[in-house]
Amino acid sequence: MSSRLAHVHPFHVMAILARAQQLAAAGHDVIHMEVGEPDFPTPAPIVEAGRQALADGKTFYTPALGIPALREAIAAFYQQRYGVTVSPRRIAVTTGASGALLLTLSALLAAGDSVLLPDPTYPCNRHLVSLLDAEPLSVAVGPDTQYQLNAQHIAAHWQANTVAAMIASPANPTGTLISPTELAALYGAVKAQGRQLIVDEIYHGLTYGMDATTALACADDIWVINSFSKYFQMTGWRLGWLVIPEAYIDAVERVAQNVFLSAPTPAQYAALAAFTPQTIALLEERRQVFHQRRDVLLAAFSEIGFRFPTQPQGAFYAYADVSDLCDNSATLAANLLEHTHVALTPGKDFGQHGATQHLRLAYTCDEARIRQAAARIGEYLQRQR
Amino acid sequence: MSSRLAHVHPFHVMAILARAQQLAAAGHDVIHMEVGEPDFPTPAPIVEAGRQALADGKTFYTPALGIPALREAIAAFYQQRYGVTVSPRRIAVTTGASGALLLTLSALLAAGDSVLLPDPTYPCNRHLVSLLDAEPLSVAVGPDTQYQLNAQHIAAHWQANTVAAMIASPANPTGTLISPTELAALYGAVKAQGRQLIVDEIYHGLTYGMDATTALACADDIWVINSFSKYFQMTGWRLGWLVIPEAYIDAVERVAQNVFLSAPTPAQYAALAAFTPQTIALLEERRQVFHQRRDVLLAAFSEIGFRFPTQPQGAFYAYADVSDLCDNSATLAANLLEHTHVALTPGKDFGQHGATQHLRLAYTCDEARIRQAAARIGEYLQRQR
Repeated sequence: MSSRLAHVHPFHVMAILARAQQLAAAGHDVIHMEVGEPDFPTPAPIVEAGRQALADGKTFYTPALGIPALREAIAAFYQQRYGVTVSPRRIAVTTGASGALLLTLSALLAAGDSVLLPDPTYPCNRHLVSLLDAEPLSVAVGPDTQYQLNAQHIAAHWQANTVAAMIASPANPTGTLISPTELAALYGAVKAQGRQLIVDEIYHGLTYGMDATTALACADDIWVINSFSKYFQMTGWRLGWLVIPEAYIDAVERVAQNVFLSAPTPAQYAALAAFTPQTIALLEERRQVFHQRRDVLLAAFSEIGFRFPTQPQGAFYAYADVSDLCDNSATLAANLLEHTHVALTPGKDFGQHGATQHLRLAYTCDEARIRQAAARIGEYLQRQR
Repeated sequence: MSSRLAHVHPFHVMAILARAQQLAAAGHDVIHMEVGEPDFPTPAPIVEAGRQALADGKTFYTPALGIPALREAIAAFYQQRYGVTVSPRRIAVTTGASGALLLTLSALLAAGDSVLLPDPTYPCNRHLVSLLDAEPLSVAVGPDTQYQLNAQHIAAHWQANTVAAMIASPANPTGTLISPTELAALYGAVKAQGRQLIVDEIYHGLTYGMDATTALACADDIWVINSFSKYFQMTGWRLGWLVIPEAYIDAVERVAQNVFLSAPTPAQYAALAAFTPQTIALLEERRQVFHQRRDVLLAAFSEIGFRFPTQPQGAFYAYADVSDLCDNSATLAANLLEHTHVALTPGKDFGQHGATQHLRLAYTCDEARIRQAAARIGEYLQRQR
């Protein structure tokens, strides 16, 4: 087996998910707050466009970087939503954001290079770096920086072999954003090293009480990863995109040709319906639902002793400090699943920094279920005292 | 830019394709024999199953190795078609055969390892090895071994850092098969090194006048890659599979979780309709069409001076020796496109061995077009004399 697998860990949440499914199969009423997937089905106009594409025989390969109409639609979306001009040439339509991340890292990393990442972070980021025989350099971040890397981190932790820094805004598991001012400083610090900044914006659109600004408003030589999975609720279609810095378009296209051939064709045609006013109106309604769920979750779980040192502003996650309630959050997660049938994700899936003190709560179930989960857990914690 | 990209070349056929599209846009009647994609649309029962899946809300992530029903259907297909028992646990449903290849190589290769491959071969095989910072070791093969690696090649070319050999049967670009006897000897030679054999069977089902035997009939610790793209004509859906040797199931699942999350969901449900008697009957009709096209192609192009040192037995390719007609097949391909509007793929896309003497002809257009292509090229060659 390849040595590169030594650092590619399974998601601990998968064990939680498997046990949750066992419990459900045994007749228990399991509340799922562990999975990073919207509970809404794909909006009907997108589904209908996908069905029509299939009826129209859109079942052949497309160009490696995607059908021109979708690359243009994504570019137009940047203009319309952010007022930022992006050439369609720079848009690569990818097999999920996972595909965008693999293309980015393949184009940038040689074996032995390193990438600066925050801890906690989405685990695939670390693992894909390892899979390419490069080294993820994790920097402990906390509520004082909204769990984001900043310019000081870059200066303090950059190594001779570091070729890129990667952040996410909104972030997983914390739901926090980076401000435009902090991003500009971070970008400046990375460019002072002559290297690359990668920004994951896959939870864009899912921000509450504010709109996020794309990193492309700061500079056009930033690698921006986005996805149709979260805001557009197309997880299973496996469709994302990458905005490529101009100088790397040919390199990314070569990798895409070899690794993916092309992204799924029916999904590409379906996604053309993602930017219509009708679809956006529906998505904005659902965004309001997520907003309300977040507020319900923070209130209900604060009441039973979960602490939220900073308010999550986006995505559909809250990262709770449960160190008042347990010695080890992974043990607590396992106990909560067994005794309350509420599934949560232990912090250790996201890194090592404070991992045993935290749980991630996904508000991908409705308000009533969120309240019910908090009530069950509150009673359980009472019984333990 | 990463040094790993130095060995990841663009497909030369893409330049041919782009020029062919320019010529077509300018009103010329271009005959496409350059693309490795069936010209048939996806069979109607599969399309209908995909449309139904979308209507039923099958738009969420699936388990990383695929929906259980499809893994079971693929396992049952091995029993039914080949009489070989494969546990569904060993089936990974992947994002195209490209995904299966990436999972396999990621699980097996460390940086600095090498993989033995035939030359000529499908270029992505070489490039994906390079992308993982490993070294493709190309072994020149010719008609004497049906363009396949054999046990003697293994013994002669194996290096201390070699961890796997990879073949395809039917092969691209030559359309040749490996016999069960040769495969058993090859497998024995690889196992004598204590290493792994990878067999690409993506053109299985498309064999003419004979049926191919899966490598799994020889041994169950062979990595077998297959696809819904070619025989099942689902290219754009991006769906393939990998049969994993038992000891590697967990490793492959970990990589799949991180690199792909899951294969496209609508495609997985659609593919459940791929194994029904109705679909198979249609596919077998189309297989007969390919068989007839092959015979027409070999006759028509032999007449105008293309040489076929061995009869292609499968896929939809013939690898023609054109050294009697030109000094450099890439120049000939460019000239044929400009002057006859027939698009063919130069040998250099497939390696270095005899590359300038060969062209790949894809019979992915109908018999009349194949005859017309040969007639145009015949006239052009006459004029050049």
